[in-house]
Amino acid sequence: MNNKLVATLLKELKKMPIIDPHTHVRQGQPVAAHLGDLLGYHYYTELSNSSRGTPVALPDDPDERIDYVWPHLPNLRGTVQFDWMMGISEVFYGIKRGDWFSKSKKEIVSRAQKVIQSKSYEKLVWEKSNVTQVYLTNQFDEALDDVKDARLVPCLRTDDLAFNADTANSIARLDKSYKTNSGGSLAAWRGVLKKVFDRFTTAKMGYCAVGLPPSFTVEPVSDDDAGALLKILAAGERFSPEQKKIWASFAIVEIAKECRRTQTPFVLMAGADRGVYKQGVPSGTDLFRCDGHLRGYDWLLNEFPDVRFPFMAVNDTAGMELATMGWIRHNVYPFSHWWYTNNPLDIRRELRRRLDVLPRTKFIGFHSDGYSLEFTLPKFNTYRLQLAIVLAERIDEGKIGGSTVLEPMTVDSALELAERIMLANCGAILSK
Amino acid sequence: MNNKLVATLLKELKKMPIIDPHTHVRQGQPVAAHLGDLLGYHYYTELSNSSRGTPVALPDDPDERIDYVWPHLPNLRGTVQFDWMMGISEVFYGIKRGDWFSKSKKEIVSRAQKVIQSKSYEKLVWEKSNVTQVYLTNQFDEALDDVKDARLVPCLRTDDLAFNADTANSIARLDKSYKTNSGGSLAAWRGVLKKVFDRFTTAKMGYCAVGLPPSFTVEPVSDDDAGALLKILAAGERFSPEQKKIWASFAIVEIAKECRRTQTPFVLMAGADRGVYKQGVPSGTDLFRCDGHLRGYDWLLNEFPDVRFPFMAVNDTAGMELATMGWIRHNVYPFSHWWYTNNPLDIRRELRRRLDVLPRTKFIGFHSDGYSLEFTLPKFNTYRLQLAIVLAERIDEGKIGGSTVLEPMTVDSALELAERIMLANCGAILSK
Amino acid sequence: MNNKLVATLLKELKKMPIIDPHTHVRQGQPVAAHLGDLLGYHYYTELSNSSRGTPVALPDDPDERIDYVWPHLPNLRGTVQFDWMMGISEVFYGIKRGDWFSKSKKEIVSRAQKVIQSKSYEKLVWEKSNVTQVYLTNQFDEALDDVKDARLVPCLRTDDLAFNADTANSIARLDKSYKTNSGGSLAAWRGVLKKVFDRFTTAKMGYCAVGLPPSFTVEPVSDDDAGALLKILAAGERFSPEQKKIWASFAIVEIAKECRRTQTPFVLMAGADRGVYKQGVPSGTDLFRCDGHLRGYDWLLNEFPDVRFPFMAVNDTAGMELATMGWIRHNVYPFSHWWYTNNPLDIRRELRRRLDVLPRTKFIGFHSDGYSLEFTLPKFNTYRLQLAIVLAERIDEGKIGGSTVLEPMTVDSALELAERIMLANCGAILSK
Repeated sequence: MNNKLVATLLKELKKMPIIDPHTHVRQGQPVAAHLGDLLGYHYYTELSNSSRGTPVALPDDPDERIDYVWPHLPNLRGTVQFDWMMGISEVFYGIKRGDWFSKSKKEIVSRAQKVIQSKSYEKLVWEKSNVTQVYLTNQFDEALDDVKDARLVPCLRTDDLAFNADTANSIARLDKSYKTNSGGSLAAWRGVLKKVFDRFTTAKMGYCAVGLPPSFTVEPVSDDDAGALLKILAAGERFSPEQKKIWASFAIVEIAKECRRTQTPFVLMAGADRGVYKQGVPSGTDLFRCDGHLRGYDWLLNEFPDVRFPFMAVNDTAGMELATMGWIRHNVYPFSHWWYTNNPLDIRRELRRRLDVLPRTKFIGFHSDGYSLEFTLPKFNTYRLQLAIVLAERIDEGKIGGSTVLEPMTVDSALELAERIMLANCGAILSK
Repeated sequence: MNNKLVATLLKELKKMPIIDPHTHVRQGQPVAAHLGDLLGYHYYTELSNSSRGTPVALPDDPDERIDYVWPHLPNLRGTVQFDWMMGISEVFYGIKRGDWFSKSKKEIVSRAQKVIQSKSYEKLVWEKSNVTQVYLTNQFDEALDDVKDARLVPCLRTDDLAFNADTANSIARLDKSYKTNSGGSLAAWRGVLKKVFDRFTTAKMGYCAVGLPPSFTVEPVSDDDAGALLKILAAGERFSPEQKKIWASFAIVEIAKECRRTQTPFVLMAGADRGVYKQGVPSGTDLFRCDGHLRGYDWLLNEFPDVRFPFMAVNDTAGMELATMGWIRHNVYPFSHWWYTNNPLDIRRELRRRLDVLPRTKFIGFHSDGYSLEFTLPKFNTYRLQLAIVLAERIDEGKIGGSTVLEPMTVDSALELAERIMLANCGAILSK
Repeated sequence: MNNKLVATLLKELKKMPIIDPHTHVRQGQPVAAHLGDLLGYHYYTELSNSSRGTPVALPDDPDERIDYVWPHLPNLRGTVQFDWMMGISEVFYGIKRGDWFSKSKKEIVSRAQKVIQSKSYEKLVWEKSNVTQVYLTNQFDEALDDVKDARLVPCLRTDDLAFNADTANSIARLDKSYKTNSGGSLAAWRGVLKKVFDRFTTAKMGYCAVGLPPSFTVEPVSDDDAGALLKILAAGERFSPEQKKIWASFAIVEIAKECRRTQTPFVLMAGADRGVYKQGVPSGTDLFRCDGHLRGYDWLLNEFPDVRFPFMAVNDTAGMELATMGWIRHNVYPFSHWWYTNNPLDIRRELRRRLDVLPRTKFIGFHSDGYSLEFTLPKFNTYRLQLAIVLAERIDEGKIGGSTVLEPMTVDSALELAERIMLANCGAILSK
């Protein structure tokens, strides 16, 4: 590692503004109201649950959540997840990492709370993070009127219309929010889906997204089959596993049609199996499988050549498969480093692959996936360091190889490339 | 990265001659006749198609092909694929990279064409590349008489006898070329296959090769079943997907028998799914799947212990599986870094693995897969740089660890190893 | 690579004592009796078999085994497997690497034998290796009385009760060793399993282990189904492939129950397919498949929350899947780098991943898997070098990023972490 060059690049990358193109930030309360909101982030509760040997149920109270994770923090030192909390602590609260282990819990909480409860806290986080745009995750029946901050971009998450249509009571919720009888007929259901997209379009949504299980296959579904499934939904009953898949295929195609109609990008988030770990804390029960491939989307991607599909995969093993999809297909855009693959090693590998084989306009650098705005900066800093390492190595390779072997890269051209994938591509790929 | 050591190694590696053990170079016209032949290479047309958002059909005219890719070249800067074109430009045409973006298209094309159309162009490419041998890809009914350059080694590609037997009109083509009735009986079909191998043997073929879809399984097929399928072929009809697989199994076994009889290596190229992307340009419609394993060849490899199987895999995920096959099995030889895995990161990873765990006689370093001789040098240079990086790291590890931990490696012994995998192993593994 | 820092770390790592938490060391004869025992290790015989082009059967005589591998050793130079032998040669026998290729076979064997046959040889190996504990692999019917050295920890290997129950004559062996009629009824079989665990518990076993094929799924089996299968076993007959799986599921659950009762960790070793290569030498016929996932253990892991499951995977592709299981699940502990993944590149990748995302208490650093105590030191040295490289890089990243980005790491805190995963975690995770 060329430490000096990496440091130079990192310093410059840290000066750039941030667009965070996928988060779960709450539109009405972008920042934490309590340190327990941050230490209660599932990364800390799941690692605490995982560390304690015997699983213990997670309490609801923010102070009790702090108690839940506190004893396990020493075992998390050196992990990237804990680094994010420490980045928040150092940058926003002025509490040094060392203090977490040399001072009392009471003192740490009190110092953090003092900042969190100050009037200018949200402003401080926005400014110190230098975040210019944050894409949200919104349910179809969520109010969007209170998204008053133009930096917050609503995005329609459609899991509850597709894979969770039955368990999430989608019909009742659609009917309530859109004053309709969405379970009455396919035409009615399609009509309300149009209303959902129209409402989000009016609210200037960034994109529509859906989560997908490992190796899922989207297939054409006849109206007869879909109509029969809608009756089950309308009756408030549960699907069999097979019915779940058929309905999901149907719903995804209908959503893709709406994306086409409204020129909305459709973000596919592939590979997570939900709820497989019985003793897990909330949001800490999901895993993937290393044989999760992406070829079940061939038909969908071919059928909707006029829809942009930014694409995330949660399993590391799909990294190269996704990169080649972005390379060959005109409507697939590899999107950041999602969830379990958001760690230094897997970021570095995929980043280098994408830089080497993809048009620089075809992929999006990074997103935080955070539930609170505080996490954007430290997560981007994790990424920025790996990006600096990859770019520094690429610059050195260019120097060694010379222009007959590979394109010489300077600090300036490396930063231009970084700006492209982290900022310009968000606008170009995720805008309507 | 030890820049100085990498540079020293790269300098020496660039002095070595090149054997290019797998290409699609045309025997009658090894080099390009027009810059549009090079910019029309599927790597550029597919990346242009992928970059333009809306797919556009590829024109046939070489000048129009240049127009097709030209506007997208700026977005390809920094990719390894574009580096190959730039290597050609700098080394053979004396056109600097920068000129491609500061001069007019007309000027670039004109300067390139001047060299391409000069009398000594082919000689120039051979000499500047220092290529001593180029293995070709020949169809079973292709004339071999015009392979007059002893540096060109014919190789029999058998996809059209196996997986494409129906769609490629194999029976009619066999009958026409070999004056036979190959669809009349299994005996007749086997007889003509023998003729094919005898003709290629006379022409001093290097090896026989076949492309294989992901996770294919070769299984024994009875003569009754094969005979029934031959009738379908003879009638000019199409196979069902299941019949396709059974015929392919049968054909591969028969080809393996001929390889045994004629002592010909049988190159297996595993993992590509053809034609999955509907809007793609020619040769730009194929993908792989990350769950593509190689265990469906167990029976074939066990059954033909006296046939050498050099082996390529297109999916990165099969890299370690392939390395262990080369480690354990006496007749499997991991062969270069194929197609999508031919990028710096995946080359570096597999190379290090193979160097660490395989006998140095058990794998082949690199091949270009190029359609025109010009691509051999720049593609080998991409590989040479990664090889230099891997060897330099290995030399440094040896210095740090000392001889009680790992074998000390010098620049000289590293180059000896490089010479072995890139040159000597081609002769030893791919010769009859 | 920061050569100086790596060297500093390696030097310190080499001073640490070794706990070797999984081996096949023979309790009565921990060290070799003949150089042929070491060169007859399957790594050398399989690589020799793989190198010779035409397979040759392996002789039994230790001298003949030396002859079997000797001609192929030059082709193994630079491999990690050969480095282990060279480490033994240099450290224990005082024979330099170079001598193996400049001196006669006779001289090398004679010099090695002189040391091996000396009275203090075993003591020398223990002392020079600085090994404090070695976990063994013991069959259920193996005598444990002669495990007199407290450094040797018996461990119960249960493959012969699960997947090999029929071919390994488990019923007859259980009956003979435990004076029972284990095939008479499920109650009888469960009774003798209890006796097995009680006997091993009395002998202070470390853990129980079982090998598992790729993508195996453990499912609940009814007593009726298990009883019917037991009748087949009792009759000395063979299972069908389907019956094999059902019995294995049953046996694994019963073993897990005993682990729960006796508070014994249950080591799962997933992913190897046995006996797939027909011409292989003994122990050199097994491979894996790159699509081997680990999700078939969900039910077992959920059902036994009070049993610790240290977990190995043989396929590189399952590395991240395993890491996330250790991250999320409280009872899964990623265990070292097994078999084919025990090579520098794959060690380095998984190590970095685990350090970045797992609580430092949740994984075990390394094991040798050796059949003779001599291999422990050189195999750990291979690991130590890669660990030093990973830690050095992490230290440099910390310096560059600074404490707002990631935890600063010093040589001391890096060594503390190394000590934790290599020594302390063995005690904490593998103790009863």
